[in-house]
Amino acid sequence: MNHAHEGFHNLRNVDDALASFLKSIEHRRLRTELQPLPQCLNRVVADEIIAKNDVPFFDRSVVDGFAVRFSDIEKATEARPVVLEIVGESRLGEIYKGTVPGRCAIAVATGSIMPKGADSVVPIEDVTQSGRRRITFVNGVKLGENILRKGEDVSRGKIVLERGRRVRAQDLGALKTLGINKIRVAKRPRVAVFSTGNELVESFRGKSSYQTVEINRLVLSAKINELGGYTINLGIVKDRKESIIRALRRAVKLSDLVLISGGSSVGQRDLVPSCIDAVGKPGMLVHGVAMRPAMPTGLASVNGIPVISLPGIPVSAMFAFLVFGRPMIAKLAGMNVVPESKLPARTAMPIKGWKGFRTFVRVGLRETADGLIATPVESQRSSVIMSIVKADGFVAVPEDAGEIPAGQMVEVTLFM
Amino acid sequence: MNHAHEGFHNLRNVDDALASFLKSIEHRRLRTELQPLPQCLNRVVADEIIAKNDVPFFDRSVVDGFAVRFSDIEKATEARPVVLEIVGESRLGEIYKGTVPGRCAIAVATGSIMPKGADSVVPIEDVTQSGRRRITFVNGVKLGENILRKGEDVSRGKIVLERGRRVRAQDLGALKTLGINKIRVAKRPRVAVFSTGNELVESFRGKSSYQTVEINRLVLSAKINELGGYTINLGIVKDRKESIIRALRRAVKLSDLVLISGGSSVGQRDLVPSCIDAVGKPGMLVHGVAMRPAMPTGLASVNGIPVISLPGIPVSAMFAFLVFGRPMIAKLAGMNVVPESKLPARTAMPIKGWKGFRTFVRVGLRETADGLIATPVESQRSSVIMSIVKADGFVAVPEDAGEIPAGQMVEVTLFM
Repeated sequence: MNHAHEGFHNLRNVDDALASFLKSIEHRRLRTELQPLPQCLNRVVADEIIAKNDVPFFDRSVVDGFAVRFSDIEKATEARPVVLEIVGESRLGEIYKGTVPGRCAIAVATGSIMPKGADSVVPIEDVTQSGRRRITFVNGVKLGENILRKGEDVSRGKIVLERGRRVRAQDLGALKTLGINKIRVAKRPRVAVFSTGNELVESFRGKSSYQTVEINRLVLSAKINELGGYTINLGIVKDRKESIIRALRRAVKLSDLVLISGGSSVGQRDLVPSCIDAVGKPGMLVHGVAMRPAMPTGLASVNGIPVISLPGIPVSAMFAFLVFGRPMIAKLAGMNVVPESKLPARTAMPIKGWKGFRTFVRVGLRETADGLIATPVESQRSSVIMSIVKADGFVAVPEDAGEIPAGQMVEVTLFM
Repeated sequence: MNHAHEGFHNLRNVDDALASFLKSIEHRRLRTELQPLPQCLNRVVADEIIAKNDVPFFDRSVVDGFAVRFSDIEKATEARPVVLEIVGESRLGEIYKGTVPGRCAIAVATGSIMPKGADSVVPIEDVTQSGRRRITFVNGVKLGENILRKGEDVSRGKIVLERGRRVRAQDLGALKTLGINKIRVAKRPRVAVFSTGNELVESFRGKSSYQTVEINRLVLSAKINELGGYTINLGIVKDRKESIIRALRRAVKLSDLVLISGGSSVGQRDLVPSCIDAVGKPGMLVHGVAMRPAMPTGLASVNGIPVISLPGIPVSAMFAFLVFGRPMIAKLAGMNVVPESKLPARTAMPIKGWKGFRTFVRVGLRETADGLIATPVESQRSSVIMSIVKADGFVAVPEDAGEIPAGQMVEVTLFM
């Protein structure tokens, strides 16, 4: 008998399990909506955005100074300065009506539209002004210098934001400049969550209570929220087939993804899976994954809606979510990358994995002169929630590694 | 004359400038509030949180199996198996009333409270059950194995979350388990933002308009929001002393930090600074920083409220915000670290800095087998907003570096 398997006989490799799970929504069409810019921060671009205008719309000065004809000043030197007459100003937000005559200059500010006739701008600090209307140049500029050309920032027809990209603060600015006030983004995935367990209660009932405070919905909601989804909280459900089936039917109807916490361990091993199979096709795709924690995780598809059966233990539920829930939400949200932060670090001590399992070892990070150092947190028991509270992230020890030696570079995935 | 200085004669070093700016709020008391857990995600812990209870409250089994007396099974082997009688079950959420007699076992599930008399748990997959009441052990467990002791996860009196720490999803779970439903967090900093400029308009008026669409408030609001602050948008203000002073007075009254975009360049050089000095003490602390972009940045303190005068050019405004606004908001929010993501990468080509300036070079990142490669985006002009839209982050070239050669490891700060 193999202690490690806790009664699961056909454990699936993590990557295979994830691939079949993601494949189950392959033909699903992305749900999208038009949203005004201020609502689009961190949303995902659903249709690639093409510039319909040039930015800037006119040639503009990029410095405060004087717009001139290059031919007038190109030979200016300390020994043979050139003197021009200031004949006007191209004010911000206006256009200079005339044409710059020879041996004349027009005052410009950063952003001023280039006056007709001028082809270069000399910065204010490179000239000497004498009186109100005369300026002296001692060194020239290059032809066309200090000008931002029409369309140089964004040119009409070019892609501004690619499909699947997360919208950042500066992207909103670029869109607004282009006259785009709404964009089509992916709808936020709806994730239904419920927990099963007769021992579970909604809140703390004192330290002499034998019952367990249910925390997975709170933690999962927060993670779902971080990823841009929103949670439909379907409560705590008793460990009874009819109750679970009823909750699951409702969940599948309301959401794009269902997370069921609990009811996946050996004792109750087939309770949630058998309910899943009873509700729709194809039902369970995977039950039992070669990972630690969260080995009893189940992955399913019920009439097109992906379902994850997460272990009830909070640490295991977290890893089942990170490994399967996060990429599924990213895909449902149309993201072209799964949002996660990884940092390279050096191991402070050997990091032990379970042979044959992908082992998620929780680590703390410490900055040193030689870079980040990763140290496993004291307890790695999945029953210890402080193992993920004290940790900054985790190292995934590969199935065939056994142990990562001290002093080795590893990738640490941060808890967000 | 030094072209690079654009009329600023006493540029302050970036670090010095930031240090004096942060020092201006040194004696400020952190504003705090009690919040229920679901509102606390990403908020900052204001008072360190101490466990008032042990977790778990009882010794619990961490596996499905059988609670036994170690002395009964310690000598079990394949050759000499031990047979025990199952005399009861410690159900989840309940307590087993009796005491486990010798040569007997009590069925337990993961999380069951340990029945009196038992001191070890044998996992279900390590035993053979014959009939309803007999189980056979062929190998023992260690004394006390598979039990999570009272207080082993969190012990009473221990610190659960430190002051200044950002609250993550799993932290909420730990607090809820401890019976903590509200915690004291830092109030979200209020950041007042207004833009000055006669040429500015609220929205796009067609590509033949000479006016400039104001985008800095939109972009800055998004950045403020990412950092957990909230924005008080005070609109666009004309380039007139009375208008700016009026807006600034209002801003200082309403907020914890004021951002003024525009009015800091050479042409209008003293407009915003002179208004700041007119409104309160000590007024301007720094005007002109040895950085590019955003050299004309001003830092001030008006009757205890920090004020940043940001250049109006969006790219410059972004860097003035990242370098000075972000750490100030982090401090106002009571964070013990400034939230920023940095990744090591190798330069694809030489990265040029301006001698004497800290130069923020916008780069794209590309993943390769040898790690991340950083390539400067095509245009580094501060007038080109696409330089920050196309970039994943930036490299800060030190003041004395001149140029970072190709192939060197650098730190890339990600745009969030």
